Amino acid sequence: MTNKGATMSEEIKEVVMIGAGPSALTAAIYTTREDIDTTLYEKATIGGLAAITDQIDNYPGFAEGVSGMTLASQLQTQAERFGAHIDFGDITDLKRVDDVVELLVDNKPVRAKAVLIATGSDYKKLGIPGEVEYYGRGVHYCATCDGAFYREKRLVVVGGGNSAVQEAIFLTRYTTHIDLLVRSTLKASDVLQRELQKFVEEGKISVHYGVVPTAIVAEDTKVSRVDGVQNGESVSYETDGIFVFIGLKPNTDFLKESGVELDDVGLVKTDTTLATSVPGVFASGDVRSGATMQIASAVGEGATAALAIREYLETLHRA
Amino acid sequence: MTNKGATMSEEIKEVVMIGAGPSALTAAIYTTREDIDTTLYEKATIGGLAAITDQIDNYPGFAEGVSGMTLASQLQTQAERFGAHIDFGDITDLKRVDDVVELLVDNKPVRAKAVLIATGSDYKKLGIPGEVEYYGRGVHYCATCDGAFYREKRLVVVGGGNSAVQEAIFLTRYTTHIDLLVRSTLKASDVLQRELQKFVEEGKISVHYGVVPTAIVAEDTKVSRVDGVQNGESVSYETDGIFVFIGLKPNTDFLKESGVELDDVGLVKTDTTLATSVPGVFASGDVRSGATMQIASAVGEGATAALAIREYLETLHRA
Repeated sequence: MTNKGATMSEEIKEVVMIGAGPSALTAAIYTTREDIDTTLYEKATIGGLAAITDQIDNYPGFAEGVSGMTLASQLQTQAERFGAHIDFGDITDLKRVDDVVELLVDNKPVRAKAVLIATGSDYKKLGIPGEVEYYGRGVHYCATCDGAFYREKRLVVVGGGNSAVQEAIFLTRYTTHIDLLVRSTLKASDVLQRELQKFVEEGKISVHYGVVPTAIVAEDTKVSRVDGVQNGESVSYETDGIFVFIGLKPNTDFLKESGVELDDVGLVKTDTTLATSVPGVFASGDVRSGATMQIASAVGEGATAALAIREYLETLHRA
Repeated sequence: MTNKGATMSEEIKEVVMIGAGPSALTAAIYTTREDIDTTLYEKATIGGLAAITDQIDNYPGFAEGVSGMTLASQLQTQAERFGAHIDFGDITDLKRVDDVVELLVDNKPVRAKAVLIATGSDYKKLGIPGEVEYYGRGVHYCATCDGAFYREKRLVVVGGGNSAVQEAIFLTRYTTHIDLLVRSTLKASDVLQRELQKFVEEGKISVHYGVVPTAIVAEDTKVSRVDGVQNGESVSYETDGIFVFIGLKPNTDFLKESGVELDDVGLVKTDTTLATSVPGVFASGDVRSGATMQIASAVGEGATAALAIREYLETLHRA
């Protein structure tokens, strides 16, 4: 499928996917099954955030849940079975020149007819002891994903913006009590703050202002306490787990000079076919503006993007 | 979660989902896991089209593929595990009255705060002997799904519209030869007809005009021949399988008086949150305008719709 008249350095790949999480792996299952040559570049973990998630209960098709590692390895094997090339590589630049998308992969130029951006987003971290150690087993960043593991339990929630307040309210459907730790003051909307007030009056949420968490402490490998500092004094909250909602960091720094349009938090804007503002460049999964941060949605968008990419390539070949 | 002051006949359910295919079952996994009371009404097969598909190779997470029956039963068990109520029932009417959506289920009124339309679409059938018997094992309606099972094989493709011509061209990447049976004349676009001509000249596709298929014939339970009539004469095409592309029939007849906006082929129009034109009514999966007819996409949209429904219910409760 490569340009046969060209020398090696001028090779133009059919499709390059940036990232190898569930969304890109799904897209690759589709493109390779249709014999479209496809290369994925991953800079960290194949399987993405899913791969480092302990237990996934809401990925459709696994009645009793599935471990993140198992799901990731199934996705990888499935994509490779149809011929996907998965390489490690860090992409630092993307630009369209004529009909081709030019990438810098580990500082080497790579050219492709079509590109899928599926680099995902990372949850912003507190950067304190215990946070990495207990990720997914007491330390969480997604209430929809992991809230249900905390029925009849106590929780600490960290954050003061819309998502922190909204998710704290949401988590009350499971928990006996929530300590909401706010670094300075609440930044959430008035509507949400009024709503929060009801839960405070019912004793379901206690709001603690001016608290900076300093450590997540476990007893027998189970998270049992969050330590912090409030107005210069040490404070401590007993808990069964901690949910952190201090923002998202989309992996889109490499797109700064690309002409790919981003929204105001840095997520990639797409149309309904998942095409970006640059022809031949598509985006799916958690890196996309409007993403739900759910594996099921990321996977669905991967399939949709693959069909759009196929159609785009057919248009190119027809031209 | 029901309106406690009301009598039984005035009960208002939280969420009703119409259909119990992969999209609705996924949405139900999400809503019930969040303790939102959810009832699904299915009039035919739990698991939808997926349930009656022999082997599914491109549903992400099953490296070696999965049988449709297994996937459907996993989805059902998973939704029921979190508390989904799955009932059989045929819905013949939907309308919004004040803040409530009123449905007719087997001619009995059912009221709900939010409704998900996930009734899917059916492929139009030829209605000839052998078509039902060999469904998914020689008789197919989706090239993206099943084309890859026909590497180095002969195929018959039926239809003369855009999708038939496009999919016949697509299938040439696998097949040795395709007989394209056209009932009258080609209705496909000029661009596609010119493209088709190239494949005819290369001997990869033969187009037969004025052919009405009359039977799909198998030898030792393997499809081996398609019989038909052409200008009053009997004709016959040896083949390893048949792909039929004569249109889609969205299951939306019950929406005629509902105010839910449909597109020109009868699929439900939605915005990016999968909300329809009627507040409180959402749509996902194959019944949605823009659907890809892929299980992965249907499942992804189910998750996205569930999050939108949750948000809608929160707004209602806040009001």
